[in-house]
Amino acid sequence: MSVKVTVWNEFRHEKDPNHPCGRVYPKGIHGCIADFLNQNDGIEARTATLDEPEHGLTDEVLEDTDVLTWWGHMAHHEVSDAVVDKIQQRVLNGMGLILLHSAHFSKIFRRMMGTSCGLRWRELADEHERVWCVDPSHPVAEGLGECFVVPHTEMYGEHFDIPDPDATVFISWYKGGEVFRSGCCWHRGKGKIFYFSPGHETFPIYKQEEVQKVITNAVLWAAPAKNGVFPMTGSVHAKVPPEPYEK
Amino acid sequence: MSVKVTVWNEFRHEKDPNHPCGRVYPKGIHGCIADFLNQNDGIEARTATLDEPEHGLTDEVLEDTDVLTWWGHMAHHEVSDAVVDKIQQRVLNGMGLILLHSAHFSKIFRRMMGTSCGLRWRELADEHERVWCVDPSHPVAEGLGECFVVPHTEMYGEHFDIPDPDATVFISWYKGGEVFRSGCCWHRGKGKIFYFSPGHETFPIYKQEEVQKVITNAVLWAAPAKNGVFPMTGSVHAKVPPEPYEK
Amino acid sequence: MSVKVTVWNEFRHEKDPNHPCGRVYPKGIHGCIADFLNQNDGIEARTATLDEPEHGLTDEVLEDTDVLTWWGHMAHHEVSDAVVDKIQQRVLNGMGLILLHSAHFSKIFRRMMGTSCGLRWRELADEHERVWCVDPSHPVAEGLGECFVVPHTEMYGEHFDIPDPDATVFISWYKGGEVFRSGCCWHRGKGKIFYFSPGHETFPIYKQEEVQKVITNAVLWAAPAKNGVFPMTGSVHAKVPPEPYEK
Amino acid sequence: MSVKVTVWNEFRHEKDPNHPCGRVYPKGIHGCIADFLNQNDGIEARTATLDEPEHGLTDEVLEDTDVLTWWGHMAHHEVSDAVVDKIQQRVLNGMGLILLHSAHFSKIFRRMMGTSCGLRWRELADEHERVWCVDPSHPVAEGLGECFVVPHTEMYGEHFDIPDPDATVFISWYKGGEVFRSGCCWHRGKGKIFYFSPGHETFPIYKQEEVQKVITNAVLWAAPAKNGVFPMTGSVHAKVPPEPYEK
Repeated sequence: MSVKVTVWNEFRHEKDPNHPCGRVYPKGIHGCIADFLNQNDGIEARTATLDEPEHGLTDEVLEDTDVLTWWGHMAHHEVSDAVVDKIQQRVLNGMGLILLHSAHFSKIFRRMMGTSCGLRWRELADEHERVWCVDPSHPVAEGLGECFVVPHTEMYGEHFDIPDPDATVFISWYKGGEVFRSGCCWHRGKGKIFYFSPGHETFPIYKQEEVQKVITNAVLWAAPAKNGVFPMTGSVHAKVPPEPYEK
Repeated sequence: MSVKVTVWNEFRHEKDPNHPCGRVYPKGIHGCIADFLNQNDGIEARTATLDEPEHGLTDEVLEDTDVLTWWGHMAHHEVSDAVVDKIQQRVLNGMGLILLHSAHFSKIFRRMMGTSCGLRWRELADEHERVWCVDPSHPVAEGLGECFVVPHTEMYGEHFDIPDPDATVFISWYKGGEVFRSGCCWHRGKGKIFYFSPGHETFPIYKQEEVQKVITNAVLWAAPAKNGVFPMTGSVHAKVPPEPYEK
Repeated sequence: MSVKVTVWNEFRHEKDPNHPCGRVYPKGIHGCIADFLNQNDGIEARTATLDEPEHGLTDEVLEDTDVLTWWGHMAHHEVSDAVVDKIQQRVLNGMGLILLHSAHFSKIFRRMMGTSCGLRWRELADEHERVWCVDPSHPVAEGLGECFVVPHTEMYGEHFDIPDPDATVFISWYKGGEVFRSGCCWHRGKGKIFYFSPGHETFPIYKQEEVQKVITNAVLWAAPAKNGVFPMTGSVHAKVPPEPYEK
Repeated sequence: MSVKVTVWNEFRHEKDPNHPCGRVYPKGIHGCIADFLNQNDGIEARTATLDEPEHGLTDEVLEDTDVLTWWGHMAHHEVSDAVVDKIQQRVLNGMGLILLHSAHFSKIFRRMMGTSCGLRWRELADEHERVWCVDPSHPVAEGLGECFVVPHTEMYGEHFDIPDPDATVFISWYKGGEVFRSGCCWHRGKGKIFYFSPGHETFPIYKQEEVQKVITNAVLWAAPAKNGVFPMTGSVHAKVPPEPYEK
């Protein structure tokens, strides 16, 4: 039984003929991500974008999504609060959520975190990033080395205003002098959340093998339990439980 | 230099002549809490309530508050979103926040947590609660034994839909068969948050010595750093840092 | 490719004709556990016991073990330190470790935790235990309800002197008045560790369906990464890394 | 009431006339640390060293110590296991423990962590270190900026084989390309532990104001509760608790 992934993208930079993003990702960032995910036999990925009706995230689509990946940058404010409400409910009920790069400032990430999600940044400084693994026991680190290099990157630096992750898997080094918790996991309700920072729209970062491996690992890790768990019902008015059956 | 505390209370049950709360707390729940906090030389507590202008939480009051304690139950929805926004900002900038009992469903707690904050509950079942300490190294546990009893309580039970606490200090046992993470700590931005569940409005729980000790400890723990830390500015566009001064 | 499990048991109570353990578990506790694990197509379980040479844990066996489960009680001190050293190294290099019931006081658990692992206990009090799930997003909780009952149990209560778990999955309630963090996860090196408290030797607890489900889930969760991660080499004298390949 | 600190140092490099350490720290590393700690009115620091009887850590000294700081490098193996046993017990009973620099490989740190505590390292590469704060809510970060520079340092890099810290306060950047979790907190039993990596013996790092501030903050944070908590007794055979007093 495949993990059903919806790859969401703002899909605006790609449509701007003056922006390099469209040349880097002719099928859009979402097209690139869906393509490499679909190379995994256990994953079935489709896409959705901001300008579709309901941002492509109808109730039907969300109900049929095991893991949602999110890339957004210039139009976070155009995402409707109603859709954000629905995504939050789905995550609390078990859907995985993968936030990519500038999605650190998306409404849904800030909603799930409760913090500002602010950070330091510096773009187009022609600097490289080293991504170090600090939790080699974590499924998201499977098959990767202790460090890989992103040759051209936008710097994202600390202090990153997030809750202390339930697991910190990667910490990045930047030539310019900063560090960043670049791969972070949280459990929220029955859902799992992963943030991964590499992915600036003007560099072919999602075409890099290690980056694809991280995101694929994250999707598999964040997929909800196959046999499910008890329903999440908000507030439960409880009766005194009966004594155990033997008695 | 004292820790300045604002003790916030919804203050509605107390005004209802048919509700026992007013007899249990003649000065209101806020009055009781402020009184015992003010017995500590290092604390200076005042009060604020829902029906005051801006719920008693003007910019001036919030700016002058080191730690905010919160009790609410029947009127969570009447708290204005603008005030919730301001409290969130203050917490991220260092103000401590103590959530009491039914404040688990307050707007500000749900905002800071990102989860539903739902739980199981059962009231007036004439049951008692044992509060067990599971982190004896934590400042909030100082001076308390390994267990204390709340003789009459409302049951709050798992599953409690919260982020995994940064420190779980207390877990409660209820006669009826449930457990609950009743004393939980989180760091958010520069602020510290503590949730403590005992405190149903019809029992004199805030008059109990151990409960007063827990809340006093929590206020002292959540007080912001005296010498401050760097300003939290959301998003920072960074230049490459200069080489160190020796070079 | 199956997960290779070695089910280790002290196997002393079962040999004592005056002890009920042998009647409850005619094939030994290890036999019972290996049998239910082997019902899972993805698991291949064998057993090892204290009185075998090297406690049945030769280098060859350990090298061929993905996950080691451990039950011990009366003879913790008879486990050789050399074997404990080897198990610790294997865990740090990726082998999963599942500690069951009185294994809280085993040499290997205390070694991995760094704490006393002490707790409160009370046996044969004819009391039942309710096991509540507090992390429904965790793989170890898959397919289980929000609570299950162990009808006859030994009480294990807080304070349990362990490091704050990386994930707390279950908290137990006991009729007599205690609570206990009964299902706890830790990451150590490249390995994963799970402690699960139900399992007193005189009650048929390992024959209970929910208990078998928990342990099976834990084995699958603790299995090391299929594609491996970088080697763990202790201390590494590093050269300055080369600039990235593009430059 | 002052926090009583014992500043422990291996004190071997300083006695070697060919080693620069003695010139950098004429009173020894311990002398330097004790001196700056004693400038704080709330702290009373004394010293102990390896070559004193019982390494200067008699029962009397340990019983009178609130916080123990530890610097060791070339003679970890000369520290007696009996003393390590006693320190571990004291920590579990509430004594704070601060590990400095190469103490990552000390017997006591490895004992408390349960892991190898291995890391990458590179010395005398004439590189600088930036220490970034990632938890501005933590008492150990009080009064410090978001980043400070150690101008000449030994590189300590990931992967650092430690348990996921209960709080990660600092992450370091090195010019050569590595990152490191350089300021980490753990709770163990009733005690608190802090590891801080800057402090190579040939550079005057402990004379740097920010470093002194971090260690002073850590000592105050790690000091045990003034009013104590319940005794830690290992294993407790419990009776069924009585019903609460009101009944």
